Amino acid sequence: MIKARRQLENVHSYEIPSFTRKDKIRLDLNESLFGCSPKVIEALREINTTDLDIYPEYDLLSKKIANNLSVKKENVLLTNGADDAIRIIIDTFIDRRDEILIPVPTYSMFELYSDLCGAWIKRIQYKEGFSFPINDILQNIGTWTKIVVIVNPASPLGTLIPEDYLIKILKKAKDSIVLLDETYWHFAGESHSGLLKKYKNLVIVQTFSKIFGLAGMRLGFILANESLMPEINKVAFPYAVTYPAVVAGYAALNDKGFIKEIVKKINIEKEFLCLNLRKSASRVHQTKTNFILADFGLKSDFVHKSLFKKGILVKNIGSMPLMDGFLRITVGTRKENKILIDAINDILE
Amino acid sequence: MIKARRQLENVHSYEIPSFTRKDKIRLDLNESLFGCSPKVIEALREINTTDLDIYPEYDLLSKKIANNLSVKKENVLLTNGADDAIRIIIDTFIDRRDEILIPVPTYSMFELYSDLCGAWIKRIQYKEGFSFPINDILQNIGTWTKIVVIVNPASPLGTLIPEDYLIKILKKAKDSIVLLDETYWHFAGESHSGLLKKYKNLVIVQTFSKIFGLAGMRLGFILANESLMPEINKVAFPYAVTYPAVVAGYAALNDKGFIKEIVKKINIEKEFLCLNLRKSASRVHQTKTNFILADFGLKSDFVHKSLFKKGILVKNIGSMPLMDGFLRITVGTRKENKILIDAINDILE
Repeated sequence: MIKARRQLENVHSYEIPSFTRKDKIRLDLNESLFGCSPKVIEALREINTTDLDIYPEYDLLSKKIANNLSVKKENVLLTNGADDAIRIIIDTFIDRRDEILIPVPTYSMFELYSDLCGAWIKRIQYKEGFSFPINDILQNIGTWTKIVVIVNPASPLGTLIPEDYLIKILKKAKDSIVLLDETYWHFAGESHSGLLKKYKNLVIVQTFSKIFGLAGMRLGFILANESLMPEINKVAFPYAVTYPAVVAGYAALNDKGFIKEIVKKINIEKEFLCLNLRKSASRVHQTKTNFILADFGLKSDFVHKSLFKKGILVKNIGSMPLMDGFLRITVGTRKENKILIDAINDILE
Repeated sequence: MIKARRQLENVHSYEIPSFTRKDKIRLDLNESLFGCSPKVIEALREINTTDLDIYPEYDLLSKKIANNLSVKKENVLLTNGADDAIRIIIDTFIDRRDEILIPVPTYSMFELYSDLCGAWIKRIQYKEGFSFPINDILQNIGTWTKIVVIVNPASPLGTLIPEDYLIKILKKAKDSIVLLDETYWHFAGESHSGLLKKYKNLVIVQTFSKIFGLAGMRLGFILANESLMPEINKVAFPYAVTYPAVVAGYAALNDKGFIKEIVKKINIEKEFLCLNLRKSASRVHQTKTNFILADFGLKSDFVHKSLFKKGILVKNIGSMPLMDGFLRITVGTRKENKILIDAINDILE
């Protein structure tokens, strides 16, 4: 009998859907429903057979990202999506039984990678009304704390953390890593990459999977002080990112107008979606992201399942803290949003 | 002062070149110098903006790989190159201080990922004349052995292991994982995937980075008994592989003639390269792979550095066990091989 290592007994794998999502209305995973920039496709068309036989090189894209966020190239490490970035940071700094502070509810991968390392996870719950538990977090930071996780804007809550809260945490946790996940920052308008210079304990994670419409490219990155990079590089894969992803990332960043256009579209559609869902849901949270939250109370499981039967995927987050009755719904195009609204009205009639 | 976890003190990161390799003659990393199949490029040209905004799905390619190697889809897990596959297997089965047997010399990533997990590494040296240390390995397999690493064909040695040796190891190590790296199998003509059905402790790693000419795609996979997959999946990334890599892998496997053609070309060029290097090197090993070994004795460091100055990259493996004086040279196209041979003659004159 071949046994996996003991720690895995406590780990639950991240479940990916067992069916194809391609022919469904995909409002469940906060992908972009607006596609990627056409400039990305143009750039990919230039790829030739001899571009692909070589191990990829990352210098150009790292520089581009650095310029874009006003940091140095030495502060950037490309990763195989944000998941890889989260794994790397946790695996670099967490020894077995080290403490990681995680505000909940949040993205499940933080706990999964913490469990893989045998971390001691301390969950700090958001307050009623979704307000950030700043005092609880500050009180819980100690010499034993190795990582404090902050997701901003938060998921699934969709709320924003004031910068002075972040600075308070960075100061209090000066001997710990503050892992700031900025997956959704473009929708809210600000990255905190400007704080990297001053706070050497700040590590930021970003991704091309959301607003850039490149989830299929698995492209993310870590921003960190250069003094942390030698250790981080021990845990990272030397060739984590593909050549097409490098090409795509570069072209995506070059298309300056694209982000603005998508944010505008998302905001219009978010408004439309919320306005219409308020007729059927008891509460609707509009959020600073590309998703919204709708509270269907006792009917939420029924709505979720009925939508699924109609080929419409939304995320049932009702089992998460504070999320009882809530569905998380990605903002789609007008066509998709209309289909969703009609389906919900139909289901609840 | 923020410290990484203790175990990292023992880990050296894999060094990637600090310069671009694109404008060099790349005979150092055993990439293909013959490009990928034109069918791959055709397939990539079909990718559109709405293909990339969705998290990738792997069913079609997993099935294709399974069919090709006569295993079940449930035995296949796609990975971010073979490196990711190696990491996953070691991280699934190795607890701190568990033993891993590694025949040396070998690919450095086995030790790196073992060190990350705090494994107890037992190196078993190949014999003089590069013969496989079958008895030493069999004698060292015990109840405390969690993984036995076998690379076949071996790198950097380029030698093949007889199937009956492999079966002896699989039988002796029946409560351990036998991690069989088949990165170079196409060049030697046989995969041992047929043994998967009978031996539940066999885990095979393969890649699209070598003969398929897709190193830039970061596509590899694990073949393992389905009973091992739930634990392996806890450690694997849910979305490790990109959508373009899925498209490329599928198209590459569909081009049946391509592999034969490349093997034929490599064999002709390998012959040409060896014939000519025998005039300058004291020993030349032709190998069952896409690289050869050439012994330049005391001059090997000088040859290596002089080639580098001329923009020709080869791998200096002289510090590895049994490899004193050897350079590892990837088989290139006729043009590249001629440039190399002329350069070496020039250097040694």
